[in-house]
Amino acid sequence: MNQEIEKAPQVAALVVGAGQGIGLGFVRQLLEGDRATPLYATYRNPDSELLQIADSRLHCLALDTTDETQIAAVVQKIQVETSALHCVINCVGVLHDGTMQPEKSLRQLNADQLLYYFQVNSIGAVLLAKHIQPLLKHRDRALFATISAKVGSIGDNQLGGWYGYRASKAALNMFMRNVAIEYKRTCPRAIVVTLHPGTTDTELSRPFQRNVPPEKLFSVERTVQQLLTVIDSLQETDSGEFFSWNGDRLPW
Amino acid sequence: MNQEIEKAPQVAALVVGAGQGIGLGFVRQLLEGDRATPLYATYRNPDSELLQIADSRLHCLALDTTDETQIAAVVQKIQVETSALHCVINCVGVLHDGTMQPEKSLRQLNADQLLYYFQVNSIGAVLLAKHIQPLLKHRDRALFATISAKVGSIGDNQLGGWYGYRASKAALNMFMRNVAIEYKRTCPRAIVVTLHPGTTDTELSRPFQRNVPPEKLFSVERTVQQLLTVIDSLQETDSGEFFSWNGDRLPW
Ligand SMILES: NC(=O)c1ccc[n+]([C@@H]2O[C@H](COP(=O)([O-])OP(=O)(O)OC[C@H]3O[C@@H](n4cnc5c(N)ncnc54)[C@H](OP(=O)(O)O)[C@@H]3O)[C@@H](O)[C@H]2O)c1
Ligand SMILES: NC(=O)c1ccc[n+]([C@@H]2O[C@H](COP(=O)([O-])OP(=O)(O)OC[C@H]3O[C@@H](n4cnc5c(N)ncnc54)[C@H](OP(=O)(O)O)[C@@H]3O)[C@@H](O)[C@H]2O)c1
Repeated sequence: MNQEIEKAPQVAALVVGAGQGIGLGFVRQLLEGDRATPLYATYRNPDSELLQIADSRLHCLALDTTDETQIAAVVQKIQVETSALHCVINCVGVLHDGTMQPEKSLRQLNADQLLYYFQVNSIGAVLLAKHIQPLLKHRDRALFATISAKVGSIGDNQLGGWYGYRASKAALNMFMRNVAIEYKRTCPRAIVVTLHPGTTDTELSRPFQRNVPPEKLFSVERTVQQLLTVIDSLQETDSGEFFSWNGDRLPW
Repeated sequence: MNQEIEKAPQVAALVVGAGQGIGLGFVRQLLEGDRATPLYATYRNPDSELLQIADSRLHCLALDTTDETQIAAVVQKIQVETSALHCVINCVGVLHDGTMQPEKSLRQLNADQLLYYFQVNSIGAVLLAKHIQPLLKHRDRALFATISAKVGSIGDNQLGGWYGYRASKAALNMFMRNVAIEYKRTCPRAIVVTLHPGTTDTELSRPFQRNVPPEKLFSVERTVQQLLTVIDSLQETDSGEFFSWNGDRLPW
């Protein structure tokens, strides 16, 4: 039998929040490893490096996940070209930006900032799960992975602080567990998980890297490699669970 | 020694969300048992039965917890009369109202409704914890209890649905665990817990009581009694945990 015919089956993938950081790293490694064709990737900022990647397999789409109509529009665009996605990785997240910092104490709490954390870190992800569903209803393995964070584990929380970020990641974990349960009925081969990437050298962690020992600060490349290893090893019975970069299950 | 002098020490308490349901039940039982003087209680709806209770120990205050300035104003009013609270019980919560129903499936998700769940069930509680702090910084036992829900347990979730309610209670549980950690530094004798009341016959559960076996549907009186028993047995090492009506710890 001709070796060339034994190609891996075509895997259509989508990376959401691929404008920088871990999401951009996923795009690079999925292309390098020839692991996804076509590969859809979304960005928010039009100055993103993502748009400089010249590769005919890559399709870039603008998306701010706080706007449900944009999520619906992105899914519609993908559906024109593709009827099935095999891998969706959602890397959207906010910890700080030009106008907000994570709260060290109750005194710093502010209702609008808290709402914004839920909007970006929790609600955007579950609205994505709502709209992407038709593309995951097929007979092949379908992965829906969202990057959460270990600080979103309630049971593991011994330090406190970062109120909005922590609570929004706990809410994300609950949303994704619900999605896993609903997808079991509607997308029978879908595996829905949340993933902790480990502290990774991106804009998000930059202001907080000082006390991280160097061996615990991962490059984006390393994090993506580790998360792809976890993703590849997932079984259908893992759906609804929360995994760390080393494959360990994390407590809720 | 004169028996009459051996009175219980004065306990100042606050029940938030006391306009109906479990909150109103707490007010009635705290007054009946002479367990709190003074007793502050907040309501949102001015037609509430709470305002018909004629008792000089009871002080009623209007409060919508989605408005931080109202929370601050209520605390200020209490501070004019009292420098210490020994027991704060937050019973505010929403599952449905005239315009919203809990989501049975992803299809029913709506960004504004999800935000509202977080606003009422999660953010209001942590903003209360922020503003009430000065009243809990004293040398006596201080309890800060918030009614959460077992369906807010991520690990216990096998059924799915009720996306916004579940995620907002998981977020509430994280917020209260954070508050417990911060209060350990600032209010050293404070005990911060979330409580599951069991299915209780109130407006909140009414549309969903059909499949509840009668022995599992508690009257408000029974729920309040059970929760007071749990509250009375709490130790300082229980701070930051999530308890059921029977005293069991619930998984996150
Ligand atoms: N880095 C770490 O140490 C670490 C640790 C634990 C968890 N995580 C999680 O890992 C995920 C990726 O973070 P990262 O470290 O790669 O940080 P990052 O470089 O800041 O990337 C975050 C991404 O989210 C996007 N984003 C934010 N708000 C958005 C919105 N409303 N709509 C669409 N996209 C939005 C950003 O878009 P723009 O490019 O337009 O800003 C950016 O591409 C996040 O969920 C984060 O919470 C990171
Ligand atoms: N009943 C159950 O089976 C059950 C089970 C698990 C958990 N719980 C939890 O128990 C708590 C009490 O619920 P319940 O059963 O007593 O229901 P309820 O009778 O509907 O009481 C809910 C209370 O929350 C108040 N509230 C809602 N939004 C508010 C806001 N923005 N500001 C101030 N107050 C607000 C309501 O005020 P108004 O009177 O103005 O509407 C009402 O007094 C809730 O946290 C609920 O999630 C109940």
